[in-house]
Amino acid sequence: MTALQQQGQAAKAASYLLSTAGTAKKNAALESIARALEARGREILAANEQDLAAARAAGIRPAMLDRLTLDGGRIAGVVAGVRQVAALPDPIGRVDKMETRPNGLIIGRRRVPLGVVAIIYEARPNVTVDAAALCLKSGNVCILRGGREAFRTNQALVSALREALGAADLPEDCISLVQDAGRETARELMHLNGYVDVLIPRGGAGLIRAVAEEASVPVIRTGEGVCHIYVDSEADLDMGAEILYNAKCSRPSVCNAVECLLVHEDVAEAFLAKVVPLLDQCRVELRCDEAALAVLGSRGVPAAEEDWDAEYGDYILAVRTVKDPEEAIAFINAHGTGHSEAIITRNYFKAQRFLDAVDAAAVYVNASTRFTDGGEFGLGAEIGISTQKMHARGPMGLEELTSCKYVIYGEGQVR
Amino acid sequence: MTALQQQGQAAKAASYLLSTAGTAKKNAALESIARALEARGREILAANEQDLAAARAAGIRPAMLDRLTLDGGRIAGVVAGVRQVAALPDPIGRVDKMETRPNGLIIGRRRVPLGVVAIIYEARPNVTVDAAALCLKSGNVCILRGGREAFRTNQALVSALREALGAADLPEDCISLVQDAGRETARELMHLNGYVDVLIPRGGAGLIRAVAEEASVPVIRTGEGVCHIYVDSEADLDMGAEILYNAKCSRPSVCNAVECLLVHEDVAEAFLAKVVPLLDQCRVELRCDEAALAVLGSRGVPAAEEDWDAEYGDYILAVRTVKDPEEAIAFINAHGTGHSEAIITRNYFKAQRFLDAVDAAAVYVNASTRFTDGGEFGLGAEIGISTQKMHARGPMGLEELTSCKYVIYGEGQVR
Repeated sequence: MTALQQQGQAAKAASYLLSTAGTAKKNAALESIARALEARGREILAANEQDLAAARAAGIRPAMLDRLTLDGGRIAGVVAGVRQVAALPDPIGRVDKMETRPNGLIIGRRRVPLGVVAIIYEARPNVTVDAAALCLKSGNVCILRGGREAFRTNQALVSALREALGAADLPEDCISLVQDAGRETARELMHLNGYVDVLIPRGGAGLIRAVAEEASVPVIRTGEGVCHIYVDSEADLDMGAEILYNAKCSRPSVCNAVECLLVHEDVAEAFLAKVVPLLDQCRVELRCDEAALAVLGSRGVPAAEEDWDAEYGDYILAVRTVKDPEEAIAFINAHGTGHSEAIITRNYFKAQRFLDAVDAAAVYVNASTRFTDGGEFGLGAEIGISTQKMHARGPMGLEELTSCKYVIYGEGQVR
Repeated sequence: MTALQQQGQAAKAASYLLSTAGTAKKNAALESIARALEARGREILAANEQDLAAARAAGIRPAMLDRLTLDGGRIAGVVAGVRQVAALPDPIGRVDKMETRPNGLIIGRRRVPLGVVAIIYEARPNVTVDAAALCLKSGNVCILRGGREAFRTNQALVSALREALGAADLPEDCISLVQDAGRETARELMHLNGYVDVLIPRGGAGLIRAVAEEASVPVIRTGEGVCHIYVDSEADLDMGAEILYNAKCSRPSVCNAVECLLVHEDVAEAFLAKVVPLLDQCRVELRCDEAALAVLGSRGVPAAEEDWDAEYGDYILAVRTVKDPEEAIAFINAHGTGHSEAIITRNYFKAQRFLDAVDAAAVYVNASTRFTDGGEFGLGAEIGISTQKMHARGPMGLEELTSCKYVIYGEGQVR
């Protein structure tokens, strides 16, 4: 048995205990975690400083260095997040429906944890605590496999988390870190069938696609976002310009940022005249089809074929003209990733048609795609945004980390 | 592009039309299907006769020959099933929850179809129509890949179904049959990513495991049933004997039949004295641990290690003694397939503990495991019984063939 298989076996064993732990006990463990992170902050920051020094020596990009960095303020944010999760309602044990059948059997459907949730992620150490807290609250054991760059930080964090679990009388194996951040263990984790009930990759599109392709355990794909905004011929163009600017520029690296503008040919010139001055503030590069290029001249550059499927995560926008809403809908269904899509229009029927026909987790009328988020949707917190249709779609809160179990009360019934 | 990729592409295109078809239109198509099956019964039976002749010539087992056989009565049953599905409530379009957020965004979660459902199954031609009807009602396009032995029958059935769709003004590609029943096309179907949203294998454990292992499209595992009944020291032994006899002998080939009796050591002798005369009626072979063998003598045979994980589907029962409910629970969680598990006891606390701690789709107190079924659970019909925790667990009715979509009504909101 490999080290990871042993870890999987221990996680599975812990999951049987955690699945029957009550809400009060789980909340006490979350409070114990919050206190442990506060008490051991200095040690965690020292480990983070080591990771940062190694990362600087290896010459990693400033954006990545920023994600890797912890400080007192960020630890306080993480601790506040743990307490927020403790305050959320516990989905486990809720009976969604229950009825007495004609033969007298009483059949109820009860929410239960998924079991063991594995998470593969990149260099953001706050994910370690966020994910562990959401899993714990929803009765799931987690196996965390963070990025190599954050390994020392994650070790310090998980050590604090496990100590806190023990203090709260729950098995330490409810939270564990893969002890080797190499590629081989990631691959092994993807095939830990029998121990891992679901694997959630968090990070860039490359990571997510590789995991979905390779894994034999069930996977939830999250966070691939090639999002579109369609500006209709009957749009309020000023509103459309504000929405597009927000969706592109407020935080271009996130998955709910817009990557492609589809604009009705009748209003292309008027709309671009309104929105380009806004986009100029962030020097957004515009990759255009021929018709848009004819309007924009040297402000645009010609789009290549791959621009119509690109998740830039940057100040770049693909711009394409369409002749009607149906062309926009068909283009989105062919090129989108099923994340977030928006129409800007005053026309009631076009709005309804867009909501019906676009195949995505979140479809908007007259609002920014940037709202696709567990907090904004009222879920309290999220472990990711699912872009698949199986199990969960859109922001995944605590409820999306559950399964169900039928419980049946009989008095001798046979069939 | 291969023939199957073209079929996948056509299915995906049809799915965008079907997903927005209203309930009345789908019900009219189901009635059109019922009539087409009635009108073309003779042609379907002729095709079935060809399949049967080939199967007899190939010397297939009588049980399989029986599954392959259609006759007037079975077609009438299939037609009645189609009309029952038409009468079920349509889950599509229902908004599970909707709220107005503090910023004025109105966010609703709407039930939508999964998209394209592929089904790989064995020689039962009634599955062809059952599955197609459930998919159609839930707005899903289906791609059917039946067993080779039933190919001519399936062609005749699907030809009738497609003609009926056309007559009801829906795309014929809403239902299609894989036109080559070889192993290579099955494998290709398992990798038809981008066209197939979910693949459901129906059949024996070997088929299901092979599909789950191989597929890169999302899979729902169904119908693997290594089910246990635990007879507690405080059980009503007469009731327990009736339940065990029902769960083993009423239909041993199905997935909710019991495969293993776990009996508390204190009542092993008394319980076996009651139940064995019942099991004798079906000449059930008893594969026993040492303690049970000591009671049963020559009526039992020693169990081998693999008996503790066997899905017999036959008049065979594994028998094992345990020292307490916790041992039974741990054994079930280690050896069960997460399908259906039962405890027989008068003790309230043991019953509650068993319901909480056993990790399975359906957990029973004092009733037969044979009730795990969409009809018995009040779902109206089922496409299979999921033994996984992701997406759906237990009997899968129309609702389990859906996903959701967030629809968001804005008035210019930005974040």
